[in-house]
Amino acid sequence: MGLTPERGQPPQPQPRKTESESGYRGRVLDLIRSKGVKVGDRVLVTDGRMELAGILMPRSELEDDLHIVVKLPDGYNVGISIESIELQNAQDQEPPQPQPEARVPPPNPALPKVAIISTGGTIASRVDYRTGAVSPALSAADLYLTVPELGEIANIQTEILFSILSENMSSKHWTSIAESVSRQIKAGAQGVVVTHGTDTMGYTAAALSFALRNLPVPVILVGSQRSSDRPSSDAALNLKGAVSAAAYAPFAEVGVLMHATPSDETLVVHRGTRARKMHTSRRDAFRSVNSRPLAVIRDGRVEAHADVDYRPRGAPGDLEVRSHFEEDVVLIKSFPGIQPDIFDPIVHRGFRGIVLEGTGLGHIPDKLFHQVRRAIESGMTVVMASQCINGRVNMNVYSTGRELLTMGVIPAGDMLPETALVKLMWVLGQTEDHGKIRELFTANLAGEISERSEYLGGGSDAE
Amino acid sequence: MGLTPERGQPPQPQPRKTESESGYRGRVLDLIRSKGVKVGDRVLVTDGRMELAGILMPRSELEDDLHIVVKLPDGYNVGISIESIELQNAQDQEPPQPQPEARVPPPNPALPKVAIISTGGTIASRVDYRTGAVSPALSAADLYLTVPELGEIANIQTEILFSILSENMSSKHWTSIAESVSRQIKAGAQGVVVTHGTDTMGYTAAALSFALRNLPVPVILVGSQRSSDRPSSDAALNLKGAVSAAAYAPFAEVGVLMHATPSDETLVVHRGTRARKMHTSRRDAFRSVNSRPLAVIRDGRVEAHADVDYRPRGAPGDLEVRSHFEEDVVLIKSFPGIQPDIFDPIVHRGFRGIVLEGTGLGHIPDKLFHQVRRAIESGMTVVMASQCINGRVNMNVYSTGRELLTMGVIPAGDMLPETALVKLMWVLGQTEDHGKIRELFTANLAGEISERSEYLGGGSDAE
Repeated sequence: MGLTPERGQPPQPQPRKTESESGYRGRVLDLIRSKGVKVGDRVLVTDGRMELAGILMPRSELEDDLHIVVKLPDGYNVGISIESIELQNAQDQEPPQPQPEARVPPPNPALPKVAIISTGGTIASRVDYRTGAVSPALSAADLYLTVPELGEIANIQTEILFSILSENMSSKHWTSIAESVSRQIKAGAQGVVVTHGTDTMGYTAAALSFALRNLPVPVILVGSQRSSDRPSSDAALNLKGAVSAAAYAPFAEVGVLMHATPSDETLVVHRGTRARKMHTSRRDAFRSVNSRPLAVIRDGRVEAHADVDYRPRGAPGDLEVRSHFEEDVVLIKSFPGIQPDIFDPIVHRGFRGIVLEGTGLGHIPDKLFHQVRRAIESGMTVVMASQCINGRVNMNVYSTGRELLTMGVIPAGDMLPETALVKLMWVLGQTEDHGKIRELFTANLAGEISERSEYLGGGSDAE
Repeated sequence: MGLTPERGQPPQPQPRKTESESGYRGRVLDLIRSKGVKVGDRVLVTDGRMELAGILMPRSELEDDLHIVVKLPDGYNVGISIESIELQNAQDQEPPQPQPEARVPPPNPALPKVAIISTGGTIASRVDYRTGAVSPALSAADLYLTVPELGEIANIQTEILFSILSENMSSKHWTSIAESVSRQIKAGAQGVVVTHGTDTMGYTAAALSFALRNLPVPVILVGSQRSSDRPSSDAALNLKGAVSAAAYAPFAEVGVLMHATPSDETLVVHRGTRARKMHTSRRDAFRSVNSRPLAVIRDGRVEAHADVDYRPRGAPGDLEVRSHFEEDVVLIKSFPGIQPDIFDPIVHRGFRGIVLEGTGLGHIPDKLFHQVRRAIESGMTVVMASQCINGRVNMNVYSTGRELLTMGVIPAGDMLPETALVKLMWVLGQTEDHGKIRELFTANLAGEISERSEYLGGGSDAE
């Protein structure tokens, strides 16, 4: 019957105002109206060979007028072409769902306790099937409504910390999340899941990796690339995987869980300091950079990578939260033609740190040297990462790097530029002593830096 | 005899001052002194089974005291462990090399004419075997001395345009290179090679892609990741591949040629607007992003990708050079905690363009909205690319993107952020008309933007 995942539409300007209802317009709107079906109604779809029952969902974007979206009983949404199907209103064939609150299962003493902390983002958004409105809040009841299997994996506690788009996260939010994770662990959680928008999930994961010292349990950040009102949303599978990892993974580290591939077969947990969003829209958007992932999850089974040296679970009493981040840190990506005077206000303004995202092994144009020297002389900490992303800075090879080292620029090794930023914010939040700053920044605190790049991606040519 | 490519050393601080000679120290320095051998001398190395003759090269870095580096007659350098070898001074066994100038072959009328324009960088560096000094200049004579096979591929014309480290390239250099390429094409070159440092080679390739309108022949940028004074340098193979591509490729586009893998088997030509340096040190550092490469080169044979729609060769008279770039453009990478006031000086200073490297589908924190609105109202052009690198910006999906579109931010589609920067510099160098700026920026001028991402890297989940 032409089930098509609702994907692959090129970006289009919003169409001019046309008649639409919860995202439906044109031919498809005519069809659903002619059948007396409204968004939120139960429907039966047949094409002579197959039959599907589900709830008619709103379209989140005005994309075409050829597909309806139906939420199936397993929680997945499918897009169905209206060519050669029969659509029926099945609203009367089944009693309405019970109130969600009624479905939260009683605690099962055999299962570990997992806390889910919600911060917003696509994964936490929920569609009101009656009105089509997207609500960014996720409650325990919402969760069990969407993914009832969570109750079979662990005893779930939930906390709505805030509901923001992740591009609006700042270090204040990192601090709140770290403190909330700590509270949950002290209250007995054997693993913590943090639902988060994917845009800055890597930055937050790095922040938690530094802020949560002597972490005793896994802390798994999870997001989704398709909101639950879109067909083939990855939200449910990712959430189940995250709860499994939080409950059963042997490592006590901060991880980022997403799809391992575009298909729904395997999930992967990246180390929090090594995870980078490397694709704008794919479900497997995140990649481990310069490092192997911590684990993969197949059929709900958490398989830790045998050759990754992870921090094992420990006693909750060991946890120490150091959640202060310095906000006056700036990241400057170098590019040809970058003009020295854009540095001036940063030095004048009294920022405490600069992360240079240089080229290659850690280079910037020599016309910036004067500004960098002045920044360091005025007491700022300047570190160097590479916009190549993969590999490590090595500032001993060429004269540019050596000169910058002489000025006092601190190389970030094989840290991601984004992790170097978060780490510098954290280090400057811990101390004002320049020797201590350098010592902390160049030490491996949370798997963010290695002596040699462990994972070469199949090559033998890395350094 | 323990030939080991000199690779894979972790970055190390320069050792304290120790006695050394052209990079040799300790045991190996004792050995070469005891044999009366100096750097630059011909040597014979035997281990009872094999015999190698070559020139003792300086070590570029003080790495260990266990290896000598010998340049073999084929131009390759090898590192040789001094365990269980015999080293002999073979200085007297062969007459000194003839002056390099004498070896430039006479023109072969059967071969196409290729111009090599040198701009500096690792690939153009040459070691003076007598003194150990690295000279960044490359002349025709130097070339044939290093890679005599070039004369069998094409008739080579060379031009030393400048000798700089590529991190110091600015748009003024792009203009010079474009004009030099144009001169060479008008003088009859059937292909042009530009040797370039790898750090900013992707930016320059994009710049030439826009500046050289109606290009009639291939223009191949080529670099190397290992200078020729290091064992297993990629300089010679890359240069031969670049000359082959310039001479024989069917496409008239700007390409970037480097190793396809860490091994020496295959070279690859990336489209100039899609090439990004993705590794600090690997020989296959460059990748095509959101696009297939133009061609691969195996055993000197140029194989254009059958399913890439390339611009074919044309008449030299068609070439039009539009080499003016606006310098007052800035790239700002968004990050959590970015502070709105870092925008102020950019607006005050009267920059003409801003490339925002946003998160995900094209987002920035909403606390920057006021600054972005003010920049656009003051006449600046603001475009949005994604720091995800892979995929495309789509600003219709979330409220953040829609609000930025409403302000007048121009989405960069699936352009690399670096290409978006270069393109904006070029577009603003062509026109001051805001309608025309938007039209040029969003049009596909040199394969830099596609309606749909062609190359999904094995996934089906991209948009």
